[in-house]
Amino acid sequence: MQGVPVLTAVEQAIGAELLEAEKILAEELHSDNPYVSDILQHSTRFRGKRLRPMLLLLAAKAAGGIRQDHKVLAAVVEMIHLATLVHDDVLDDAETRRHVATVNARWNNETSVLFGDYLFTHSFHLASSLETTDACRRIGHATNIVCEGELSQIKERGNLDLSEEAYFKIIDGKTAELTALCGHLGARYALAEPAVITAMEQYGRSLGLAFQIADDVLDLMGNERKTGKSLGSDLQKQKLTLPLIRLLQTASDQDTSEIRQILAHPEESTRDRLIPYLERSDAFDYTNKRAKALAQDAHRQLESLPNTPAKRILSEIADFAVQRSF
Amino acid sequence: MQGVPVLTAVEQAIGAELLEAEKILAEELHSDNPYVSDILQHSTRFRGKRLRPMLLLLAAKAAGGIRQDHKVLAAVVEMIHLATLVHDDVLDDAETRRHVATVNARWNNETSVLFGDYLFTHSFHLASSLETTDACRRIGHATNIVCEGELSQIKERGNLDLSEEAYFKIIDGKTAELTALCGHLGARYALAEPAVITAMEQYGRSLGLAFQIADDVLDLMGNERKTGKSLGSDLQKQKLTLPLIRLLQTASDQDTSEIRQILAHPEESTRDRLIPYLERSDAFDYTNKRAKALAQDAHRQLESLPNTPAKRILSEIADFAVQRSF
Repeated sequence: MQGVPVLTAVEQAIGAELLEAEKILAEELHSDNPYVSDILQHSTRFRGKRLRPMLLLLAAKAAGGIRQDHKVLAAVVEMIHLATLVHDDVLDDAETRRHVATVNARWNNETSVLFGDYLFTHSFHLASSLETTDACRRIGHATNIVCEGELSQIKERGNLDLSEEAYFKIIDGKTAELTALCGHLGARYALAEPAVITAMEQYGRSLGLAFQIADDVLDLMGNERKTGKSLGSDLQKQKLTLPLIRLLQTASDQDTSEIRQILAHPEESTRDRLIPYLERSDAFDYTNKRAKALAQDAHRQLESLPNTPAKRILSEIADFAVQRSF
Repeated sequence: MQGVPVLTAVEQAIGAELLEAEKILAEELHSDNPYVSDILQHSTRFRGKRLRPMLLLLAAKAAGGIRQDHKVLAAVVEMIHLATLVHDDVLDDAETRRHVATVNARWNNETSVLFGDYLFTHSFHLASSLETTDACRRIGHATNIVCEGELSQIKERGNLDLSEEAYFKIIDGKTAELTALCGHLGARYALAEPAVITAMEQYGRSLGLAFQIADDVLDLMGNERKTGKSLGSDLQKQKLTLPLIRLLQTASDQDTSEIRQILAHPEESTRDRLIPYLERSDAFDYTNKRAKALAQDAHRQLESLPNTPAKRILSEIADFAVQRSF
C-alpha cells in the first residue's frame, strides 16, 4: 500500500497519534502466556489499512483536535475490528489475510474463536479505562448491531432472492455501524457541536457502506496477489452481494436460470463462470454508481467543517473508498 | 434440579431478586430481528443452575444488602457465562446442553460464534449502564483472564504430561475468575469493607475451582441423562483433568503405558476402557479430597460475616459443589 497518496497525507497529519494508538493497543494486548503471546505476535502481521483508528483520529482533528482519549478509543475500535476479522476468518474458512496465514489456518478454529473473544474482552477493558461509561455504552451498542448484522448475513446465505434493501441492512450493521461510531466518537470527544457529531457519524456510515461494497466487488473480481487475502469466499458461502443482486434482477430469464444454477452449486470455477454474465450486464456499473453516491454523501457531510488538512484527507478517503483495488 | 434443598433456600432468600435479574437480562437481549430472536428464545431453554447470579446476589446479601446495581451485575455475569458456554459448545462439538440441542447443533457453528459474540457485547453494553466504569473495568479484566485460561486449555490438549499446577492454573482462569468476580462485585456494591470484599472474592474463587473439578469428574463418570449434556468430551478432546492427572502420576509403569495408549486414541469406548484403571487407583479419592479442601477454604472465607440466611446458603453451596451429580 506504499505510495498511495492519501495514506502519505494521513501519515503526515496523524502519523504520531496513530503510532501512539498502536502503542496503547500493544500494551493492552501484552500477555505473559507464551501461547497467547505467539498468537498476538502473529496477528500483528495482519497490518491493514488501519481505517477505523484513522477515521476516528481524523474526525477528531477535523472537528476540534485530538485528545488523549481519542488515542485510547482509536486502539479500542481497531481491536474490535480485529476481533471481527478473526471470527470472520473462522466463518469463511479463510486461509490467508494480508498475505499471512489466518489464525485458524496457522492454529485451529478453536483458537481463533477464543482469540477473537480475547480481543473483544480487551477492547471493552481498554474502553473502560476512560473516565465515564459514555464510550463503553456507545461501543457496546455499536458492537451489538455489528453482531446482528453478521447473524443476518449467515441467515441469508444461500438466499438467491436477497433484496438490495436486505443487503444494505446487513452491511450497514456489519460494517458501517463501526465506521459511523468512529466518526461519532472522534467528533464527540473533540467536544464538537451536536450537528457536527451527527455529520461525522453519517460520514463514517456512508464511507463504511462504500468501502464494504468495494470489498464485495473485490471478492468477486479482485486479484488475490494484490489484495493479499483469500477471494471468492462470498460465492463459496453463497453470500449474495450487490453486483450479483443487480445481475439477477436484470438478466434475461434464460441467463437468470443459468446464473442461479451456477450460484447454487459453488465450486472452484464459479467466479470464472460468472464473468461473462457480469460483463454483458450493467452490474458493475450499477454497483459502482451506488458506491459513488455513498462517497458523495460522505463528502456532503464534511461541508460544514472548517477547511483543514484533516478535512481534506477525509474527503480523499471517500474518493479512495470507491477506487481501491486492494 | 427441583427438590435440592439448597436451591429451595436460595429461592426463598433471593428468588425475587433473581427474577428481576432475569428480567433485566431478557430486556437487554430483546431483538426485533426474527433470526436473532429465535436463537435467543432457544437459548433460554439452557436454563441452568444460575450459579453466578446467585453467588453475586447472595454475596451482596451476606455482605450488606442487595441494591439495584447488583441485579444488573447479576444479569451481566450470567450473560458472560452464557457467551462462554455457547463458544464452548462450538469448541467441544457438543450436541446437547441441559437436555436441549446446542446452538451449533440446531443452527451451525458460524451462528454459534456470532451469537456468543452477541452475548459478550451485550454483557458489556449492559455493564456500562451503571454509573461508573468500575464494574466494566473489573468485568473486562476478569473476562480477559477467562479467555487466556480457555486458550491455555486448547494449547494443552493432547499433552498427557500436564501437571496439576498447570491444570489448576487453567481452571482458575476459565472458571474461578468469574465466580471470584461474582463474590467481589456482590460485596463491593454492597459497600462492604475491603477485607470482606477480598474474602468474598476468595470464596468465589475456591468455590469455582471446586465446581470445575466436580464438573470434570462428571464428564468422566457422570450420567448423560442426569446431567443433560454431552459427556466424555474431555476425553474426546484429550483434555487431561485432575483424576486422570493423578491416575497417570500414580499408576504402575505397565498401566501408565496402557492408559497413555487409550488416551492417545480417543474413541466411543474410551470412558469405559479407563474405568478399571481408575477404580484400582486413588484418583477419585484424591480428586474428591482436593475439591473438599477447596470447599473448606470457601467455608473459611465466610467466617468473618455475620450469621444470616444468606451466609448459611453460601456455606451450603460450598458443600453442594462437591456432592452434586448433575
